[in-house]
Amino acid sequence: MDFKRCVWAILFAFHTGVAYGYELQSKPDPSDARATARWLVSQNLWGVLSTISIDLEGAPFGNVVSFSDGLPDQGSGIPYFYLTLLDPTPRDVLKDSRCSFTISEAPLGTCGDTDPENPTCSKLTLTGKMKQINRNDPEADFAAQALYSKHSEMTDWPKDHNFQYFKLVIEGIFLIDWFGGPKPLSVAEYFQPGRDFSR
Amino acid sequence: MDFKRCVWAILFAFHTGVAYGYELQSKPDPSDARATARWLVSQNLWGVLSTISIDLEGAPFGNVVSFSDGLPDQGSGIPYFYLTLLDPTPRDVLKDSRCSFTISEAPLGTCGDTDPENPTCSKLTLTGKMKQINRNDPEADFAAQALYSKHSEMTDWPKDHNFQYFKLVIEGIFLIDWFGGPKPLSVAEYFQPGRDFSR
Repeated sequence: MDFKRCVWAILFAFHTGVAYGYELQSKPDPSDARATARWLVSQNLWGVLSTISIDLEGAPFGNVVSFSDGLPDQGSGIPYFYLTLLDPTPRDVLKDSRCSFTISEAPLGTCGDTDPENPTCSKLTLTGKMKQINRNDPEADFAAQALYSKHSEMTDWPKDHNFQYFKLVIEGIFLIDWFGGPKPLSVAEYFQPGRDFSR
Repeated sequence: MDFKRCVWAILFAFHTGVAYGYELQSKPDPSDARATARWLVSQNLWGVLSTISIDLEGAPFGNVVSFSDGLPDQGSGIPYFYLTLLDPTPRDVLKDSRCSFTISEAPLGTCGDTDPENPTCSKLTLTGKMKQINRNDPEADFAAQALYSKHSEMTDWPKDHNFQYFKLVIEGIFLIDWFGGPKPLSVAEYFQPGRDFSR
């Protein structure tokens, strides 16, 4: 890594770490698919949910959303969301729960000058079904803690906007973190105990 | 804006500007929907393409891709892509051309501490049909210039990976840049002459 890239990487990583309010954990080796996927999910703050659009009569529709898989020091691997039913995305999934959730290493700053489409700038798409979490469900408390720990302003979002908790029930994993195509990674492997980014 | 946020915004914006190799243009007033949408498209480098997945039998699938709408000082508003047919996304659109392309203000650094899901951290989803551009088509030259000016490493991507040029033929625009829901913005208005981020 040349000096200039090093300086920028340090500045960017430091800024990103401070802006998020917690330190960015170091990127795992790309040969460890489980750790890389879980790192992406635990360290990122936002991504794009893709749904089958009601308004567009079945066409695909992607939308930027915030998310969290747990407290900053304890990632569960499950993305939780806090979505207003004024927005098309949760209305789409309440009709057709099939969706995907896409995140990139790029916002974390660790791709440096590497192009976001270069396979070594890792990216992950989790596919499956979106499930709304009832407010009375104990899992709603976990979702709330997970989300508010990384998105503190959510506690101030207007109560009359019908925000609800959702989670993605993961059925498939598409991870690219090196050359050679998507890394084989089953859902069972993804959820295996291992490096969980605790401090 | 408090001092700390100002320092970080400056550092982040400066870093982002230098890393991209060109200066980030100032964000338009959110009341100017056309300018805001065109600014997001001209200043961003990557986003998420959502397609109807062949592999997942009709489920929606989002994938991180790089893009460009023109030279850094001359945005056309049309996103161009350089995609390998080894990847599922271009194969999906060659079967069913319906897709959406989603970008956020967050990677540009100008959202500061504002949450990526907060409406004032703007986001844009362009919906429509993906069209492959034949290599013999003069538009392929424009696509190449647009893409290589912002993604210089693309010229070195392996020729045997069957990379092809694509563009999104825009049919609908979903822009959120303030409270109150998506901004009304027709495709005709989007393409009207106006601030085109030329220097």
